Amino acid sequence: MNASSSIFSHPSADGVWHHIQEDAYFPLNPIAQQDLAPTSGHLRPISLVVQNQILVWAGPSHELPSCYSALTHYDCRDSIVTPGLVDCHTHLVYAGHRANEFAMRLEGASYEAIAKAGGGIISTVNATRQATEDELFAQSAPRLEALLAEGVCALEIKSGYGLSLADERKQLKVARRLSQHFDVKIQTTFLGAHALPPEYAGHPDDYIDLVCQEILPTLAQEGLVDAVDVFCENIAFNLAQTEKVFKAAQALGLPVKLHAEQLSDMGGAALAARYNALSCDHIEHLSLEGIAAMKASGTVAVLLPGAFYNLRDTHVPPIQALRDAGVPMAVSTDHNPGTSPVHSLLLMTHMACTFFRLTVAEALAGITYHAAKALALEESYGQLHIGQVANFVVWPCKSAAELVYHFGHRPHCTVIRQGKIAQNCLSIHAQDSSSRHHIKDTLE
Amino acid sequence: MNASSSIFSHPSADGVWHHIQEDAYFPLNPIAQQDLAPTSGHLRPISLVVQNQILVWAGPSHELPSCYSALTHYDCRDSIVTPGLVDCHTHLVYAGHRANEFAMRLEGASYEAIAKAGGGIISTVNATRQATEDELFAQSAPRLEALLAEGVCALEIKSGYGLSLADERKQLKVARRLSQHFDVKIQTTFLGAHALPPEYAGHPDDYIDLVCQEILPTLAQEGLVDAVDVFCENIAFNLAQTEKVFKAAQALGLPVKLHAEQLSDMGGAALAARYNALSCDHIEHLSLEGIAAMKASGTVAVLLPGAFYNLRDTHVPPIQALRDAGVPMAVSTDHNPGTSPVHSLLLMTHMACTFFRLTVAEALAGITYHAAKALALEESYGQLHIGQVANFVVWPCKSAAELVYHFGHRPHCTVIRQGKIAQNCLSIHAQDSSSRHHIKDTLE
Repeated sequence: MNASSSIFSHPSADGVWHHIQEDAYFPLNPIAQQDLAPTSGHLRPISLVVQNQILVWAGPSHELPSCYSALTHYDCRDSIVTPGLVDCHTHLVYAGHRANEFAMRLEGASYEAIAKAGGGIISTVNATRQATEDELFAQSAPRLEALLAEGVCALEIKSGYGLSLADERKQLKVARRLSQHFDVKIQTTFLGAHALPPEYAGHPDDYIDLVCQEILPTLAQEGLVDAVDVFCENIAFNLAQTEKVFKAAQALGLPVKLHAEQLSDMGGAALAARYNALSCDHIEHLSLEGIAAMKASGTVAVLLPGAFYNLRDTHVPPIQALRDAGVPMAVSTDHNPGTSPVHSLLLMTHMACTFFRLTVAEALAGITYHAAKALALEESYGQLHIGQVANFVVWPCKSAAELVYHFGHRPHCTVIRQGKIAQNCLSIHAQDSSSRHHIKDTLE
Repeated sequence: MNASSSIFSHPSADGVWHHIQEDAYFPLNPIAQQDLAPTSGHLRPISLVVQNQILVWAGPSHELPSCYSALTHYDCRDSIVTPGLVDCHTHLVYAGHRANEFAMRLEGASYEAIAKAGGGIISTVNATRQATEDELFAQSAPRLEALLAEGVCALEIKSGYGLSLADERKQLKVARRLSQHFDVKIQTTFLGAHALPPEYAGHPDDYIDLVCQEILPTLAQEGLVDAVDVFCENIAFNLAQTEKVFKAAQALGLPVKLHAEQLSDMGGAALAARYNALSCDHIEHLSLEGIAAMKASGTVAVLLPGAFYNLRDTHVPPIQALRDAGVPMAVSTDHNPGTSPVHSLLLMTHMACTFFRLTVAEALAGITYHAAKALALEESYGQLHIGQVANFVVWPCKSAAELVYHFGHRPHCTVIRQGKIAQNCLSIHAQDSSSRHHIKDTLE
């Protein structure tokens, strides 16, 4: 794999994506959907027009302006369209895995025994430190490909398994290379304050000083950091340490996010809101005060049901209070090798509905426009934005509810990413005469 | 799709599958693995030899007999092998889906409102009755394809959404056609006693008589029935009705299975054991008496964590008691449109470990040889049987524990099904120069 530039030559998506079935959960009018209820109105065949990789028109198929009639037409009958999906919280770049630790725990091994066998987060830190940048890229790429195959068009990747200047840089550089190689929008988040590196055991404040004074400013100057995150928790960093990192981020003009109130109510969300955090993530133990602060600051609540499930957590985030307050809720994989080795954002929507009782509409908003907002990408991702580079997904089903209701599935979706046809299941189907799906590269 | 015969011309798997990494969970010696602990011994490069679609040899690569050296060699370095997977409990053949009902329930709709909107099991019965055999085939085929892509080489399909002679026949005929079309071993199970058809409301005994005296004997005579199942539950059929069906099955020489103790302890497992049932399935409320009876009769305990999860059940099956008693445990999807619309058997292993605390070894046995035993197929499926038609899967990982530890994933596995290469991810990788996987169609 030539990691320095993209090996892909995806064809342009320019043309008319024609006769798509309008979806109740993503109606075209208004395209900028703000309410969370599916429309009950008449659903029409609709068309999207891509020119020069920009989404230039969307409307009822019968209203397609004649100026577009000479363009290539892609017949999308019996399919719906959604915005490209957005996975707003991942730790996708790391080396190794922790399958052995998973197996040991089920056999009753103690945490001590697992630690002795090299398990726990430090095992991932060690593996990530030992990996070369190329090795890290090669190991991370298949994980990204699994998300892209599911229609993800923008995602976040955090650092936090390097915990030194060189190794955090290596992680973030790999994230940038993945973005270039796969032609996908990736927001990098610096999470140097993820865990205490072994060499700073007993000296967390010294490590936080290193993060604030050296690692973060250096990596920010190198253009590797889009946002800054902290793991604020009893087992990680306290409020004062968190605020130090936020101040350093603020000084550099970088937005912040927070791993907040996952295992206990630390008051992290209120602190994050004071720094206008883009998002507070996990939030199983979020208080009403935290919710009010997040509402005031426009902070997104990022729900991570994969970690909730995998940790066998039973303390559900305060969904109804978030809903009542009008705090936007996103849903993400939290992909990481310890607490959430999950490879499907759609599965997370099912778990968000099952464990957290999100509605289907909320779950879908959670992996599209609310997820984009958690990454400050809402102007160009997570909706069908006319005038922006085309990022949308054509699904072989009749309602977006089907994407959430099934689980463990991998729909044969056609992915328009960055104005190109990144995955074409219409043409695959066309080669199979059994299918109802056809692609027509002909003029209408 | 030409449904009457297979459209596939999979290439023969004849050759040497070479330099596979032996796996701790599926060691070659003994090939007939009976214990549930992964081996801690030295893991060797191993080879499998397929001739005339039969697995004729398996052993350390350096001991490959010279008589096989002229065969095609498939280089499987950095991969492991498992037996073809077995999904021993599915309701895969039906029409329609219940996404709307799923969405309504999350929006707080009452069961009455859902029933009024056409929801519930009867909606699937109605849709299945209305579908033609070809429509039923076309709708069921993609669900089967999802399982096959994951390495499933044998599975069970139940009837039970027809609930009339003609419609149960239609379901079972589709199951037979799927088997032929996709060249996969499918065991059909007659589940006429799944739910009471609307036309028999208030007259369950009359319906059971119809099942026992007309529907089952007719379909058995037509060669459509490999086993007989009943849904024994407060909301379905009672013990006496269950036993009537078992007697009818016994008279026809057909083995029985049971949906037992899912929602309450009905004593169904003990009854099923008296009829030497192949399996008792669900068994969340199974008693110690039921366990003892199952042990005595050699009945397999089939765990269905997808339904447990989707129903938000909290009553875990008595795993430790089953383990202590030595009752073999299988794990299955229970794929169905109401309580378990899941499309991944691997996800079920993760859920069995997470919810039920199965060990990785137990979960892997649950989708291979214990699942085969639940279908009376243990002589030819679920293990690497020398002298039988080759059914195995080559996985791009270093331990079968990775198959369970990840979730929501879809490994790029190479599937040898019925002695043919049904899915070849080795060659796909070979086309991608970035991969470490290569296929060599050359003589060594």
